[in-house]
Amino acid sequence: MGANSSAELTPSVALDHPGVPELFAVLAYGEISAFYRLVEEAQLSPSLRGKVAVAKMAAAEMNHFKTVERALSDRGVDVFDAMAPYVRALDAYHASTSPSTWLESMVKFYVGDGIAADFYREIAGALAPEIAGVVRDVLADTGHSEFVVEEVRSAVLANRQEKDRLMLWGRRLLGEAITQAQYVMAQRDDLTELMITAAGALGDIVALFDRMQDSHAQRMELLGLV
Amino acid sequence: MGANSSAELTPSVALDHPGVPELFAVLAYGEISAFYRLVEEAQLSPSLRGKVAVAKMAAAEMNHFKTVERALSDRGVDVFDAMAPYVRALDAYHASTSPSTWLESMVKFYVGDGIAADFYREIAGALAPEIAGVVRDVLADTGHSEFVVEEVRSAVLANRQEKDRLMLWGRRLLGEAITQAQYVMAQRDDLTELMITAAGALGDIVALFDRMQDSHAQRMELLGLV
Repeated sequence: MGANSSAELTPSVALDHPGVPELFAVLAYGEISAFYRLVEEAQLSPSLRGKVAVAKMAAAEMNHFKTVERALSDRGVDVFDAMAPYVRALDAYHASTSPSTWLESMVKFYVGDGIAADFYREIAGALAPEIAGVVRDVLADTGHSEFVVEEVRSAVLANRQEKDRLMLWGRRLLGEAITQAQYVMAQRDDLTELMITAAGALGDIVALFDRMQDSHAQRMELLGLV
Repeated sequence: MGANSSAELTPSVALDHPGVPELFAVLAYGEISAFYRLVEEAQLSPSLRGKVAVAKMAAAEMNHFKTVERALSDRGVDVFDAMAPYVRALDAYHASTSPSTWLESMVKFYVGDGIAADFYREIAGALAPEIAGVVRDVLADTGHSEFVVEEVRSAVLANRQEKDRLMLWGRRLLGEAITQAQYVMAQRDDLTELMITAAGALGDIVALFDRMQDSHAQRMELLGLV
């Protein structure tokens, strides 16, 4: 939906905007922190099957990391220096949404991934094509989190209390993601400027967050959490 | 070395040997357990650089896992059913070689990986080409553990006591690997038969372990542990 509504825009963020390496750095650390969190949270899985599914998702994150790492080094930027300012805010998101059950953990894989992807895809609509290409490559849906849908659906069909709990959990994930996203954007002036330019070109920032909320609601429905 | 000395052999383990799915299953669970252990042990890294290097190694393990998973499903074998008998023995290797420092952890990545690769490469020399191909793909050196060499070399040059400790650690890794390899081989009759046939074709099992010990010594030397 976001992609369609912004497809015909003239890119408003140029290839040499100083916020571009910052955006790539956020994406890069996002992949690393997701990798380590996924693996840690997979320990909650009661089965080897779940652990393998998560390990595949985590490996896909690392392949995406290599894409941004290359995009940064093509611009003469060291990925580690660039990521440093974002470590704390992204770690804070994961720390504030630490699942206590395997079901919570699966909902987080699916819903958290989706929220981040929506956000970056919206932004990509206002970026110069070469930058948007990197962003879209990094977000390419690997389909690895699809295993979550069936497992969560059948668990919540069988248990009303679990369903109520997971509905609250989903709402919390969205809230924390938006809070932390705003915090991340404010870390560096160049990044803030890029985001404001991009969001302005997309209509306005309030409408952007409304669309993200709609997509989130659709994902929750798919999980049977409605 | 092993690869050269066995290159002209007629394969003695046929394509339809019943131990072949067992061998693939050991390789498969080896990748999964290495993945989870690498990531857990990476927590010892004092730097993000180290964590990223390990995450890349771990992601490479998962890509290899997918190769064996496919080879098994081509034979109508479910990878999870096939791996089950080997979970305990492979977990035992990792539990018995749990590093307590980042240096120990790096030596384990490098040396442990090397020992396993030597062993499977030796065996591959006696397998039908289609099977040997799968084994060699899975072991393909991704070069990701090379970062270890410089870090360990400079650490042990600067600290004699650390060097002595790590030399003992290396010896322990080899011992535990051989112990657990023998235990793994004994889990299933078909696998034992395959290993005996392969080792017999390669000369004898004692010579095979001697060659592995030589390669191990060369790796230790490269790390400055001599």
